Amino acid sequence: MSKRALAVTREANFPDWYQAVVRDGDMAETSPVRGCMIIKPWGWGVWERIQGELDGRIKETGHENCYFPLFIPMSFIAKEADHVEGFAKEMAVVTHHRLKNVGGKLVVDPDAKLEEPLIVRPTSETIIGDAFQRWIKSYRDLPLLVNQWANVVRWEMRTRLFLRTAEFLWQEGHTAHADRDDAMAETLKMLEVYREFAETVLAMPVVAGEKPANERFPGADNTYSIEAMMQDGKALQAGTSHYLGTHFAQAQNIQYQNAEGQLTFCHTTSWGVSTRLIGGVIMTHGDDDGLRLPPKIAPRQIVIVPMLRDKPEDAALIAYCKEIERELKAAGIRTLVDVKPTKSAEKRWNWVRRGAPVIVEVGGRDMAGENITFMRRDRLRDGDKIAALTKSRTDFVAEAASLLDDIQSSLFSEAKARLDGNIVTGIATFDALAAFFGAAAEDDEGGAFKGWVKVAWSRPEGAELEAIADRLKALKLTIRNAPLAQDPVEGPCLFTGAPAKEFVLIARAY
Amino acid sequence: MSKRALAVTREANFPDWYQAVVRDGDMAETSPVRGCMIIKPWGWGVWERIQGELDGRIKETGHENCYFPLFIPMSFIAKEADHVEGFAKEMAVVTHHRLKNVGGKLVVDPDAKLEEPLIVRPTSETIIGDAFQRWIKSYRDLPLLVNQWANVVRWEMRTRLFLRTAEFLWQEGHTAHADRDDAMAETLKMLEVYREFAETVLAMPVVAGEKPANERFPGADNTYSIEAMMQDGKALQAGTSHYLGTHFAQAQNIQYQNAEGQLTFCHTTSWGVSTRLIGGVIMTHGDDDGLRLPPKIAPRQIVIVPMLRDKPEDAALIAYCKEIERELKAAGIRTLVDVKPTKSAEKRWNWVRRGAPVIVEVGGRDMAGENITFMRRDRLRDGDKIAALTKSRTDFVAEAASLLDDIQSSLFSEAKARLDGNIVTGIATFDALAAFFGAAAEDDEGGAFKGWVKVAWSRPEGAELEAIADRLKALKLTIRNAPLAQDPVEGPCLFTGAPAKEFVLIARAY
Repeated sequence: MSKRALAVTREANFPDWYQAVVRDGDMAETSPVRGCMIIKPWGWGVWERIQGELDGRIKETGHENCYFPLFIPMSFIAKEADHVEGFAKEMAVVTHHRLKNVGGKLVVDPDAKLEEPLIVRPTSETIIGDAFQRWIKSYRDLPLLVNQWANVVRWEMRTRLFLRTAEFLWQEGHTAHADRDDAMAETLKMLEVYREFAETVLAMPVVAGEKPANERFPGADNTYSIEAMMQDGKALQAGTSHYLGTHFAQAQNIQYQNAEGQLTFCHTTSWGVSTRLIGGVIMTHGDDDGLRLPPKIAPRQIVIVPMLRDKPEDAALIAYCKEIERELKAAGIRTLVDVKPTKSAEKRWNWVRRGAPVIVEVGGRDMAGENITFMRRDRLRDGDKIAALTKSRTDFVAEAASLLDDIQSSLFSEAKARLDGNIVTGIATFDALAAFFGAAAEDDEGGAFKGWVKVAWSRPEGAELEAIADRLKALKLTIRNAPLAQDPVEGPCLFTGAPAKEFVLIARAY
Repeated sequence: MSKRALAVTREANFPDWYQAVVRDGDMAETSPVRGCMIIKPWGWGVWERIQGELDGRIKETGHENCYFPLFIPMSFIAKEADHVEGFAKEMAVVTHHRLKNVGGKLVVDPDAKLEEPLIVRPTSETIIGDAFQRWIKSYRDLPLLVNQWANVVRWEMRTRLFLRTAEFLWQEGHTAHADRDDAMAETLKMLEVYREFAETVLAMPVVAGEKPANERFPGADNTYSIEAMMQDGKALQAGTSHYLGTHFAQAQNIQYQNAEGQLTFCHTTSWGVSTRLIGGVIMTHGDDDGLRLPPKIAPRQIVIVPMLRDKPEDAALIAYCKEIERELKAAGIRTLVDVKPTKSAEKRWNWVRRGAPVIVEVGGRDMAGENITFMRRDRLRDGDKIAALTKSRTDFVAEAASLLDDIQSSLFSEAKARLDGNIVTGIATFDALAAFFGAAAEDDEGGAFKGWVKVAWSRPEGAELEAIADRLKALKLTIRNAPLAQDPVEGPCLFTGAPAKEFVLIARAY
C-alpha cells in the first residue's frame, strides 16, 4: 500500500505538511488568543526532555537558575538605544490593573491606569541588568552566571506554531564578566553547548558561526548562531549567543571594583534557545508519515500496542505487555503500553504520526512465541511496505537501549548527509547566486529545495552591508552566519569585489 | 556565644524575622516591578525540588502536562458570573501591542490598541475550558486530566515575598469528568496528593478539609484546602482543590456524548499549589539563625566548607573535600564543596542562614585524622552553643543518607507537635472565642502566638454565613476549613445555636 499517514507530503506542500505533522502528531494547536499556541501533552513532553537535557548542560557549565519578573517597566526598555530600536516595536503593553463591571458588562477600569506602562518581557536583558547592577560590587562577584526558563512575548504579525509565536518559551542565560576576553569565552562556550546539544540530543546537525553585523541582537557587539538545514532547504536559526560588550553595563551602570580598587564596567553576554527548536526537530526529521522523534527527546521511546479483541483473552495480553514494559523501564527506557479502547491499527498509526521511535505490536501469537514484532520509526518503510522486524523477547529487551542509540545516530547521519551535501560552493557572482536560487514563491515559502550557498566575502559593515542585505532580501535571501570552522579564503568578495576575508552561508530562512 | 545569625528573632518581630530569613537566606528579593519578586538561585533551587517531587506525583496519578496561553481574552473571563466577581477585580490588562519612539521618547502607540483587551492569566479555567470544549466529544475522552506549570498574575495591593506577590509561579491542574462522583473523587484525590506531598516532602504538617461556602473559589461548588500552622500561630492555606460542578462546563459548553448518545455537561475540577509553599516552609521550619530546609527540597543537602588559609596546603585540603563529595554524590546526595574565596566562618554562617541540612567543616587536623566534624542544621545549638558532631569519615559517608532521613523526620515531628498541641477545643461561645484571640495588632500582624480554635458549627450558608464571617473579620479571624477527619459532634453551633453538624478550624491567617 502506498498510502501515507499524513494527507499531504513534503514534496507537495512543505508548509501544509509541517502543519499536518504538528496537528496529527498531537504536538500543538492554535489558541483563541492571537499568535499564542497551546502545547499539547506530547509536544510538552518533548519540551520537558529538551529542558532536562539542556538544563543539565547549563548547570554543568557553572550557571545557576533564577527567576525574574514577567513585566519590565517601559523606562527600562528605553535605556539602551539599539535595544529600543530592535524591540520597542511589537510588544504586549500592560496599561491597566483592573476590570470593572458596568451594567453587567466587563470593561477596563479607566481609574486603574498604571503610572508607567509595563511591557511583557520580550527578553530580559534590562530587568536582569538592573539586578546585576545591585548584585555586583567587586571583581570577586565575577563572573556572575545566571539562567532562567521563562515565557516571553513578541507581538509577531505572522505566526506559525513553534517557529514564530507571540508567546514562546525559552531559556535565557545572562552573564557578567570582568573583561572582554572572559565574556567572549563565555559567549563561545555557550554556542558550543548549543551545538553539542542540538547534534547530540536533537540529532539536528548545525553550523555554528557569527551573524553578520546587520543580523545582530539589538545592543550586541557580536551575535553567534547555530543554523540548521530544514528539509525544504531553508535555514532555521536554532540558538543564539551574544557578546554584549559594555552596552548594557553602561546603560544600566553595571560596574565592579577591580583588584586595584577602580570602578570598571562589566562585559555582559546573553544566550537563548526556545520552543522554536521543536519546529526544527519536526522539519529536520519528519517524513510523509509524520514526526520522527530522536529517542533522547521522545516522551515515550518504546510504545507497546496490544492487539486487543474485546475478549477475555485481552487481560492476559495486557499483563504480558506490562511485563515487557517493566523490563524495559528497569533498563531506563521510557515505555508505554497503550491500552486505550481504540483499534490497534488506529493506535499504531497515531504513534507513527507522533514519531515514537519504536512501536511494538503484540498479538496472541507473539505472546505464545515470546517474539517481539516491531517497527523502527526512522526506517518505517521498505519501499511502500511497512518494515516489520522481529526479535525474541529476551533479545529485544536486552538490545533495546542499543536499538534506541542506533535510531538516534541514524537520524543524525541522515540529516548530517543532507546538510553536508547541500552547501553549494563555487558561486562567485551575485547574478550566479540569483540564478541558483531563482525566483522565490510569492507566498514567501521559498519554492523548491535549493540548500545553502557558501560564498567568500570581505565582511563589509554599515551602509555597504545594508545595501547588500537589501539586494539579498529582494531574492528572499539572508546571510545566515560566517561558520566558525573556516577554510582558507582567497579571491574577491562576491558582493564588493574587495579581497575576501571569510566565507558566509546564504540561504532562505525561517 | 548567644549571638544569632539573624538580626531579629521570631519572638521580637515575626514579620521582620520572615523578611530577614528570605533576604539573608538568599531566597528572593523585591524587584523594581511593583509586587513582582526575583527568585534567587537558592530559592529557585528549592522551587525546582518542589516541582520535581510534585510533578512526579501529578504524573503518577494519570495527569499529563500541557501549556496554555499567558493571555486570556476579556470576554472569556466574562463568561462565568461568579468567576467575574472573584477575579475581575485586580488583574494585569494588556491593551496595546506596540511602543513608538516620539521625539526620542518611548510611548505607547495609540494606533496599536487591541480590539479586545487581553488579561494576563490570574488562573486558567476559562482558557483551558475553551480547549476542553473542543477536545471532548464522547465519554471515551473522559476523564481528561491535564496540568500546567505556569506564571500567573493577580494585582495584589499588599505584597510579601513568596506569600502574596503580583506574579507568582504555580501548577494548576484542570480535569473534566463524566459525573459528579468521578469529579469529586478527583478533587479529593488531589487534595490527598497535596497533603502527602506537604507532609512527606516539605515536612510541613497540614489539616486537609473543606472551606466554608464564603471562602470558595469563584465558580466552585466545593473548595478544599490544606492548612498549615506557622510559627506565629497563623494559618497558611498551602494548596486548594476545587470541585467546579458544571458551572464552567455550562458557561463554556463543555459537553460529551454519553454511552446512550445524549449530550451531557462535564463536571470539572481544578487544583493548585504555588511558590507560596516556600513561604510556608520558611515559617514552619525557620529559626532565629535562618532557614532550616527539609533535606528533600534542599538544593544542597550536605555542604562541605574547607578551612582554607591561603597557603599551599589548601590544594590538598580541597582535593580531600572533593573526594568526600564524590563519595556522597555516588550515594545520591546533593553535595557542594564551597571553595569561594571568603573566610570559612562567613561561609559556615551563610549556609546556616540558607538552611543547608548538614554543614561540614574540614581543617587540616580533620583531614589527618579522617574525621568529619559537622552540624545538623535542625539541631544547630545545644543551649546557646553550636552543637558540633563528629564521626569517622567512613561512618559519615555510610550513614549520610540516614542522617538526612532523620533530619527530615525530626523537622516534621517538631512541626507536627506544634500543630497538634495548638488546636484549642472547648470554646463554646463567641465571646470566649473573642477573648481567646484577644485584640489583633493594628498592623494586621496578628499579635502573640494563639494557635487555632476548633469549634462546632451548624454549617450555615448565605446571609447567615456572611454575617458570621463579618463578625470574625472584625477580630481578624477566618474559618480555615472543616477537617476531613472529624470527631463526633454534638451540642449547639457556636455561631447560630442550632445543632452543630461538624467542627471547623478558626484562626488568624496569611
